[in-house]
Amino acid sequence: MNNKIGFISGTGPQGKGVALRLASAGVEVVIGSRSIEKAKAIADEINNLLSENVAVGMDNSTMINECDIIFLTVPFEHAIETIETYHSELQAKPEGIFVDVTVPLVFNQGKCNVCTLEEESGIELLRTKVPEQLSMVGAFKTISAEWLNDLEKPLDLTDFIFGDNEAAIDKIVDICHKIPGFQPLRAGDLCTCNVVERMTAFLINLNKLYGVKHLGFKLQW
Amino acid sequence: MNNKIGFISGTGPQGKGVALRLASAGVEVVIGSRSIEKAKAIADEINNLLSENVAVGMDNSTMINECDIIFLTVPFEHAIETIETYHSELQAKPEGIFVDVTVPLVFNQGKCNVCTLEEESGIELLRTKVPEQLSMVGAFKTISAEWLNDLEKPLDLTDFIFGDNEAAIDKIVDICHKIPGFQPLRAGDLCTCNVVERMTAFLINLNKLYGVKHLGFKLQW
Repeated sequence: MNNKIGFISGTGPQGKGVALRLASAGVEVVIGSRSIEKAKAIADEINNLLSENVAVGMDNSTMINECDIIFLTVPFEHAIETIETYHSELQAKPEGIFVDVTVPLVFNQGKCNVCTLEEESGIELLRTKVPEQLSMVGAFKTISAEWLNDLEKPLDLTDFIFGDNEAAIDKIVDICHKIPGFQPLRAGDLCTCNVVERMTAFLINLNKLYGVKHLGFKLQW
Repeated sequence: MNNKIGFISGTGPQGKGVALRLASAGVEVVIGSRSIEKAKAIADEINNLLSENVAVGMDNSTMINECDIIFLTVPFEHAIETIETYHSELQAKPEGIFVDVTVPLVFNQGKCNVCTLEEESGIELLRTKVPEQLSMVGAFKTISAEWLNDLEKPLDLTDFIFGDNEAAIDKIVDICHKIPGFQPLRAGDLCTCNVVERMTAFLINLNKLYGVKHLGFKLQW
């Protein structure tokens, strides 16, 4: 298994932000998109911001073939459709880690909450769609795009990383540990997502209450 | 309304810990108990730890008559019974703030989770039991007794404070601000409890995973 990290449709603010922070820590990142031009434009933007050549852009299918760690950073409402679109490419991989960064959110009377789904959490629903031989890991769910993309702010936050395979969780924790100041933490199995996704909705409500967009949690010892 | 803070059956580790931290910040605290001797013993313990005379002990009924801010720090399984026992004393108060510190937790196969209740959260259930003229506020729900009682550790944590009355929330936030290093934060209405109580269960699972008892959250800006 290689350590290249690809982002399915990683051209939005969350995908770009995670890729930027990982690239800034020297991790090889591949921005995927339906449009190869769009993917290359975001990779160029990352390389320009870092004054290094660490990111490349590819169409999603090529990226999935090339990378064994694949981050899904689309808005949750496109998550299942995206997995279905690239199901045969994902199915063709003998092994790998599928990292879900999405959060199923709904806004009602100005308040953010998690959606009611057929499963207890978004990641448990996506687990039923992603080919079984890929391990499933949740990460970056409480880390805002705003903070990720503000390179002047060290990522002084805890990332709660959970999944269905201990070795896969460890791998993602190890990679995230390369980001200066960041505190990736092994946080349990897929059920953990039930609370972590609610914490994201809570952060969004707190952001609104305080007129900011970047709040995050740090675990204190 | 006076600013004396009373603790209904505040002789357990959570009640003692909250009282200790508030007393250490110069707040007048009254430990309540069914047994006046037990209440006085805990008050003495707090005064000895702080080398000051800031805590007193009373039976619960006298404490409720004396204090306009009343913390409930019993285990959640005794919360409703406790409120019912002192309902007439609570009912007799023309105004006041009832601060719920309890969390409805259940352990299943070694994992902690919130209980399924008739309401969305513990505090919303207790709201239906506490006399209506008292404002309801939730506080200290994610702050461990372990950390509270370790005076050598500054309380470098965020407390998510929420409730059904803005002025009451502000009052509790202001009082908690007196504790050095502590970050009390206005966090919304009673529905906020749904996520905050789950965060407590999450902390307990993380404590177990890491072999500690004191983990807590800090909101990062």
